[in-house]
Amino acid sequence: MKVVAIVGSTRKESYNKKITAFMQKRYTDKVEIEILPLENLPMYNEDEELNPPAVVTDIKKKITDSDGILIATPEYNHSISGFLKNAIDWFSRVDKVMVNKPVMIVGCSPGALGTVRAQMQLRQILNSPGVSAFTLPGNEVFIGAVHEKINESGNLVHEPTIQFLDTVMNNFVDWIQKVK
Amino acid sequence: MKVVAIVGSTRKESYNKKITAFMQKRYTDKVEIEILPLENLPMYNEDEELNPPAVVTDIKKKITDSDGILIATPEYNHSISGFLKNAIDWFSRVDKVMVNKPVMIVGCSPGALGTVRAQMQLRQILNSPGVSAFTLPGNEVFIGAVHEKINESGNLVHEPTIQFLDTVMNNFVDWIQKVK
Amino acid sequence: MKVVAIVGSTRKESYNKKITAFMQKRYTDKVEIEILPLENLPMYNEDEELNPPAVVTDIKKKITDSDGILIATPEYNHSISGFLKNAIDWFSRVDKVMVNKPVMIVGCSPGALGTVRAQMQLRQILNSPGVSAFTLPGNEVFIGAVHEKINESGNLVHEPTIQFLDTVMNNFVDWIQKVK
Amino acid sequence: MKVVAIVGSTRKESYNKKITAFMQKRYTDKVEIEILPLENLPMYNEDEELNPPAVVTDIKKKITDSDGILIATPEYNHSISGFLKNAIDWFSRVDKVMVNKPVMIVGCSPGALGTVRAQMQLRQILNSPGVSAFTLPGNEVFIGAVHEKINESGNLVHEPTIQFLDTVMNNFVDWIQKVK
Repeated sequence: MKVVAIVGSTRKESYNKKITAFMQKRYTDKVEIEILPLENLPMYNEDEELNPPAVVTDIKKKITDSDGILIATPEYNHSISGFLKNAIDWFSRVDKVMVNKPVMIVGCSPGALGTVRAQMQLRQILNSPGVSAFTLPGNEVFIGAVHEKINESGNLVHEPTIQFLDTVMNNFVDWIQKVK
Repeated sequence: MKVVAIVGSTRKESYNKKITAFMQKRYTDKVEIEILPLENLPMYNEDEELNPPAVVTDIKKKITDSDGILIATPEYNHSISGFLKNAIDWFSRVDKVMVNKPVMIVGCSPGALGTVRAQMQLRQILNSPGVSAFTLPGNEVFIGAVHEKINESGNLVHEPTIQFLDTVMNNFVDWIQKVK
Repeated sequence: MKVVAIVGSTRKESYNKKITAFMQKRYTDKVEIEILPLENLPMYNEDEELNPPAVVTDIKKKITDSDGILIATPEYNHSISGFLKNAIDWFSRVDKVMVNKPVMIVGCSPGALGTVRAQMQLRQILNSPGVSAFTLPGNEVFIGAVHEKINESGNLVHEPTIQFLDTVMNNFVDWIQKVK
Repeated sequence: MKVVAIVGSTRKESYNKKITAFMQKRYTDKVEIEILPLENLPMYNEDEELNPPAVVTDIKKKITDSDGILIATPEYNHSISGFLKNAIDWFSRVDKVMVNKPVMIVGCSPGALGTVRAQMQLRQILNSPGVSAFTLPGNEVFIGAVHEKINESGNLVHEPTIQFLDTVMNNFVDWIQKVK
């Protein structure tokens, strides 16, 4: 089972990058997670959508070939980052590669709320006609105080969070099989 | 009274660009509207926010020097564009130039809904601590079927919409004076 | 296939009641739609949830026994009605009868927007742990200018809307089979 | 300065009731807070809005006579309670007593999130034309783990929360003066 990961943060030491890398290693027997190289995506412009640069085409192909999508989102100003929204804008046009793809969402923040507001908006975005993903219902993963739950090597070491992630990943695998 | 305009669309023939240009001309006796040149803003990255490129600094200065902000937003996937969100992400950090700035929102779409969903999310974004704008309450401007309301020269020619815009612009001018 | 209908409006001549009655008749060969008698539900109070009045228990049993739920919602103040929210509050507690139930949403309004904002909030509500419904993704039914689309006998007579409803109902029947 | 309080919970031992009572005592030198007796409000029905029962008229008069409104909201299913929404539905019709009234929002929950999702939806509701309140921008009060912050006598005893409430109440008093 092949899952592509979309990480909504650009900074080098992003906690959402670390959580995604942790999941990639931990669930290797269940799913093969490939982290998409979004850093070089240009700003979406409708005038260019029919002749996009190769980086757009290449990433869209990876999504098309996948069985599901993992999104790890930070919260910027009560929403997802412009960086993440821009990626979704590209994916939602022309060949619309997210349509009917199962999606699982996680999010980390140093604060208490764990990106809950960003995820509220993200689920609305994923339900739009151009995206039209099969987002896993419920199973909201809000990892607050993340700096206390990840160690110096970048591994998640907070047992209750790990167990909850395990449960949600199992639910996601079931969901992929149910809706495909 | 100086107002800066943030247009959330990049394509050349954008209706939101046209509406903004129309408002710029029509309300010249009430407010001086300057359209911000956002096209060259790079993707926001937290690692670079303390040393941003000059284009970021220049645009932020224009916002700081303004009396209010007009946002014209398209709707992409039930939300604002990644392009617009990215601009707000820059403005919300370090010197946080939108704090306590009066904001008025308009939006156009060819469909019936006139960007209502994008504006629902945008108001939530504007209420976050990093932005913390004084968004004009109510006064929702949803210009649906916009292609039937703008003529070949790019001017808004739909009288009921023009009159409604006039009212909202008056309310915005009052709001600027009330909350400053 | 048995579907129960939750109508979020109380007034006698409610358009959402009429649309639901129309759907009940039109789709009789696909699904048996029973409109739930919500009028006598009391206000939810957590202190009484373990010993609710019989009307609560009776309606919850009908939901438990159903294969899916149709919700017809008006828009009150950018959201669903207190009446509809109160019903969901009852259903979300103790035996949580909406969990994993397929849900389809429709909404009518005399204005242009067709309850889009109410439905944005409703989908967030349906995704909460106490409700945890399997809401049909996409397939948003916004019936604006409904007074021009329903005739004096209360029947929907606007062909494009009828055809769209037919499509969404087919998608809902498929969804029920997919997620059960 | 007279403020009326709307508490969105009905159960006897509601934390939101306790927080409101605490604020009533603590800010007695700044504002006089009267808690509205919403328990007897019937379910809103458009057919009855022109001839509402006296309890509706009496409460609406208190709102009309106030300088501002404090709303204390629980979170039920990612939103406000049906009970609270129903009260707002009454207030939003006919004489529309919340129009241009300054509003401050607080919310408590035993969980970590402190009703953040309910407040996201509530702010959208308050921005609708029928309500059209002047909601205090920002100043979000999310009191999570509230059972650890209120003592047996029902008093808030968590110093950082008290100090934050003090700040927000000061901001609210300034806001009332600014927008009236």
